[in-house]
Amino acid sequence: MADLRTIGVLGGMGPEATVLLQRKLIEAVQPRDDSDHIPLLIDMNPQVPSRIAHLIESNGTDPGPTLAEMAQRLQTAGAVALAMPCNTAHHYAKAITDAVDIPLLNMVDLAADHAAKTLGTGGCVGLLASPAVRRIRLFETALSARGLSVIWPAKDQPMLDAIRAIKAGDAGTSPRDTLLSASTELAAAGAELQFVACSEFSIIADSVAPEANVLDTIDLLTSSIIETSRAGFSGKSE
Amino acid sequence: MADLRTIGVLGGMGPEATVLLQRKLIEAVQPRDDSDHIPLLIDMNPQVPSRIAHLIESNGTDPGPTLAEMAQRLQTAGAVALAMPCNTAHHYAKAITDAVDIPLLNMVDLAADHAAKTLGTGGCVGLLASPAVRRIRLFETALSARGLSVIWPAKDQPMLDAIRAIKAGDAGTSPRDTLLSASTELAAAGAELQFVACSEFSIIADSVAPEANVLDTIDLLTSSIIETSRAGFSGKSE
Repeated sequence: MADLRTIGVLGGMGPEATVLLQRKLIEAVQPRDDSDHIPLLIDMNPQVPSRIAHLIESNGTDPGPTLAEMAQRLQTAGAVALAMPCNTAHHYAKAITDAVDIPLLNMVDLAADHAAKTLGTGGCVGLLASPAVRRIRLFETALSARGLSVIWPAKDQPMLDAIRAIKAGDAGTSPRDTLLSASTELAAAGAELQFVACSEFSIIADSVAPEANVLDTIDLLTSSIIETSRAGFSGKSE
Repeated sequence: MADLRTIGVLGGMGPEATVLLQRKLIEAVQPRDDSDHIPLLIDMNPQVPSRIAHLIESNGTDPGPTLAEMAQRLQTAGAVALAMPCNTAHHYAKAITDAVDIPLLNMVDLAADHAAKTLGTGGCVGLLASPAVRRIRLFETALSARGLSVIWPAKDQPMLDAIRAIKAGDAGTSPRDTLLSASTELAAAGAELQFVACSEFSIIADSVAPEANVLDTIDLLTSSIIETSRAGFSGKSE
């Protein structure tokens, strides 16, 4: 398996989500030995300027240039493709792809493609994500281009509070209740599919409503990373 | 905390241990937000030639040149110091430090210093580690230089079997029983302090004998990484 190709990870947004992606990659491989695992170059940079501060509070530094520098550094170090386990940061996808010659395995596009394939035109997707993602219409843009509609929980503030709690190390009852309540609401409102589309919610994704059809965008990214890394092995081109 | 310095991680030996180090680093920080966490550049390279094959079976490729290249790449990318969450790979520490101008936070030296400080001259240290580490006398060299002796479990094969099981994804009853039995044996044989000094055993370190005084070398590395990263913040020099 020496032909596995190295994937660059724009990480640290937050560190927990970057660790979660690595754990999912380890678990997705059936290893005989270390060498079966996917090689990664991970820029764990928790100091990327806050996406929420920039997008919602409008008082923060633009994270775009920092992400572009990280992408260049990963390309220089040998990554053949990039992945970013942070949905919100995909707002800056263009700043990243403009800075490098290698592709970004875009988690939002992967999710939109999956929804279009499984639901077809006219499908309704519920979003369990950051109000920052809602404000920038990240998923609306990708899903409406594929003929799908998007619904959100009515109240933003509990979602934002839950994300901040998890970032501060509290993945306990309070954020879990918020996620359960939001996914129950979305299922009742007609969402045929729901995306956990916030790396903090990925950490507590087992707390969604049992009746909801929920998929975590980080799982789609995990599959895409493995496929892209193994493309060198199978001889498949991008 | 923008002055936190980036630490380079020679990782993937195995991937689980590299994830464990990140988890310990996350848990050791009391975060107010993402930006309090330690910035890392992680070369997750599960394709480093097998240390066990090279050191024990004598039929493998020398991992030294690969580790040297990884170290250079991390230095070029901006790391101010290196860390390697794999005890066995410290056999190749010189190949690494010869290749770069930045220090390696040497986990074996950190462990030996700690043992010397807490036990004093004449102390006896038990090793829960790979037979590869035993064969190359990695800890014997470091500890005897500080006036301490080293003892090992009588049988190598169960330890090797347990490491291979964990690398293959089995961190269950069988390797846990092996670790419990080995640490019980070492405590009875007079070890005043035991080191979990194998990244695979770190994953099941809660299975050591309850009566044993056990410290995981990866915890010493975790503390050293935080201290080194923050040295830029406090103005402390290396």
